[in-house]
Amino acid sequence: MTETALKQQALRLGKQAKVAARRLAPLSSAEKNRALLLMAEKLEAKSGFLVEENQKDLEFATANGVSSAMLDRIALDPGRVRAMAQGLREVAALPDPVREVVKMWRRPNGLQVGRMRIPLGVIGIIYEARPNVTADAAALCLKSGNAVILRGGSEAHHSNQAIGAVLREACAETKVPQDAVQVVQVKDRALVNELLQLEEYIDLIIPRGGEDLIRAVVAHSKIPVIKHYKGICHVYVDSDADLQMAEKICFNAKVQRPSVCNAMETLLVHEAVAPKFLPAMIEKYRSAHVEVRGCARTCALVPGITPATEADWSTEYLELIISVRIVKDMDEAIDHIERYGSEHTESIITTSYQKSREFVDRVNSSAVMVNASTRFNDGGELGLGAEIGISTSKIHAFGPMGLEELTTTKFIVFGDGQIRE
Amino acid sequence: MTETALKQQALRLGKQAKVAARRLAPLSSAEKNRALLLMAEKLEAKSGFLVEENQKDLEFATANGVSSAMLDRIALDPGRVRAMAQGLREVAALPDPVREVVKMWRRPNGLQVGRMRIPLGVIGIIYEARPNVTADAAALCLKSGNAVILRGGSEAHHSNQAIGAVLREACAETKVPQDAVQVVQVKDRALVNELLQLEEYIDLIIPRGGEDLIRAVVAHSKIPVIKHYKGICHVYVDSDADLQMAEKICFNAKVQRPSVCNAMETLLVHEAVAPKFLPAMIEKYRSAHVEVRGCARTCALVPGITPATEADWSTEYLELIISVRIVKDMDEAIDHIERYGSEHTESIITTSYQKSREFVDRVNSSAVMVNASTRFNDGGELGLGAEIGISTSKIHAFGPMGLEELTTTKFIVFGDGQIRE
Repeated sequence: MTETALKQQALRLGKQAKVAARRLAPLSSAEKNRALLLMAEKLEAKSGFLVEENQKDLEFATANGVSSAMLDRIALDPGRVRAMAQGLREVAALPDPVREVVKMWRRPNGLQVGRMRIPLGVIGIIYEARPNVTADAAALCLKSGNAVILRGGSEAHHSNQAIGAVLREACAETKVPQDAVQVVQVKDRALVNELLQLEEYIDLIIPRGGEDLIRAVVAHSKIPVIKHYKGICHVYVDSDADLQMAEKICFNAKVQRPSVCNAMETLLVHEAVAPKFLPAMIEKYRSAHVEVRGCARTCALVPGITPATEADWSTEYLELIISVRIVKDMDEAIDHIERYGSEHTESIITTSYQKSREFVDRVNSSAVMVNASTRFNDGGELGLGAEIGISTSKIHAFGPMGLEELTTTKFIVFGDGQIRE
Repeated sequence: MTETALKQQALRLGKQAKVAARRLAPLSSAEKNRALLLMAEKLEAKSGFLVEENQKDLEFATANGVSSAMLDRIALDPGRVRAMAQGLREVAALPDPVREVVKMWRRPNGLQVGRMRIPLGVIGIIYEARPNVTADAAALCLKSGNAVILRGGSEAHHSNQAIGAVLREACAETKVPQDAVQVVQVKDRALVNELLQLEEYIDLIIPRGGEDLIRAVVAHSKIPVIKHYKGICHVYVDSDADLQMAEKICFNAKVQRPSVCNAMETLLVHEAVAPKFLPAMIEKYRSAHVEVRGCARTCALVPGITPATEADWSTEYLELIISVRIVKDMDEAIDHIERYGSEHTESIITTSYQKSREFVDRVNSSAVMVNASTRFNDGGELGLGAEIGISTSKIHAFGPMGLEELTTTKFIVFGDGQIRE
């Protein structure tokens, strides 16, 4: 495709989305839910078609020798299609944030002033691999009254197209405009860069995927981007920790699902409890095949530990590797977090009231926890109902983003003829 | 200055601000207020010095033949210095948003989850002319726990430097780090572009000034920018309007202060009341020297009206000119607003309950009003205490931005040993 054709194509997507967004914004919750439930029904009814189309992606991927982990991420089967449909039904059941008045007050001159939630408008999602993102992200955008432009990875091209076609078919039978959900058909990556220029038509870009993808989006976008680059999460075991609780949480935070952004990467332990706590903890990690890399003091305390290098402290392993550091107090733990952390998730294990308060006040990560596993930094787990991603940008949203974070508020003002003097 | 030197200078400003932001964030309200009150005291005590330095800017401006309106914007006298000090005292008296827990809930597993306000970190303000912005913006950033880098226009260079020096002198006698307030000394505009690259050190950019300045900032910035380009505000006089009230509001919205963004630029009138309403309204405008440009129907109704061109509907006059259009119903009024408006401020004048509801629901501007002057779209007037600007970006803040809009929230999570299954 020529550059001109790509520009035109991007502009067409943007304009169609903006028109759809204006028609979508005033719809009632019932009308939007009707579309979501119909989408779920149709996905299940067309399960055979979806699995067939997915087969094309799998064949292409196999021919190109991708890893079995990647194949698993791309694959759809009837069970996964059902799960996708179920996800849509869950979004339909969530409260609609649009037109909620979040606050209202009265001014001395009698004006009544409030803030009402409204959709952002048009959201662009740029993602990789898993085709279920197509349905999940579309559902969250639709429910919050936003039109969405979805641009998935080429490795799931046929699957994403097929899911998009089914979702749009459902829209056509409801008041939701079809262009509220657009799945980009052009495979050329240059189209993404054209989309990122359309600040007049697209209000927000959410990239989901590896750090390289996200950095490329941020570098090219004129549109605000909400993202997180990585999650280097810490657990700090304080001198006043309940060590049994600490062991349980530290094991869970590292081992339960190591491949995700809210898994712990570095364990910080107060020197007063390190001799009692670390040998057993490390033994437990080893029994779960976790490779432990330690600071000099950790290596001196427990035989056979790989020494951690400077690079280890700022590495997001996303696998069964952990770095461990003994610190002399909470100040040193917080210094370490500020220096090497990614402002994602940190947890303190302590029985001290005063230290729990201080840790929560001083650490400014997107989620700061006391006596809980970092794995809880997730929209579903924290009670947002669902999440479209986790943000470590502080602007607009910080932490997991649910439906409310896909809205903004306008001021509404009710008067009786007030003028300014 | 060479490009390398500029880069180093920008980086130094950014790094110093980030260090200061970390020291500023945990300070108590009392500590921040102490600095604000001391700043006010010192500004008044050094009024002579400030007026002297301001004289240099005025002389330079006069030598360069700037307009008398611009000279007035730059000028400082003891009264204006007192007003600036008073502004700081008012900010000190506002409630501190930092560490406010805005919401808290409990999860089925016993986790207690909340959202706590925290400062954004480092804010860059790029502005023109009025030197009082230096003190106002510094105060709002400081109160909300943010370090600020201030880059004013070269036309007020000496005044801004002098104000900055006094503010920093006050910081030095309190716990607020001096680098919480940095006024850029380098006059070279290229430094601004270097600052706009520092996404690692600066969290938010707020440009204040003309549309050209703002577009240049948006085009170059890697950092999120909150801004508004212009305010094309509408009043729609409905068929069910109280016409006396309508006349009072329409006059106020246009005439009370025409040079500001929340002044009305276009008046939309329902055809059913136009014959009764418009002749007297236009007479009233003319008596206040307002030039009226009308649609064909307006011109036919009232003799001697200049016909409005297509360009008029999307022009922010910022002076005593108004465009007037007769519409056949509210749908046509809203279509006009969507097509030509800037999502800033729109007001309906009506006695109809149903139409007030519909207008407020359907118009998604930063402030949507019923029976009130558009001039109320202002942080102080709407009850935010003060404002650092008005945003028509929907991301993060939409409408006037007060102290709360200079914060974000982190999730805080209190557990008793919870792990994910």
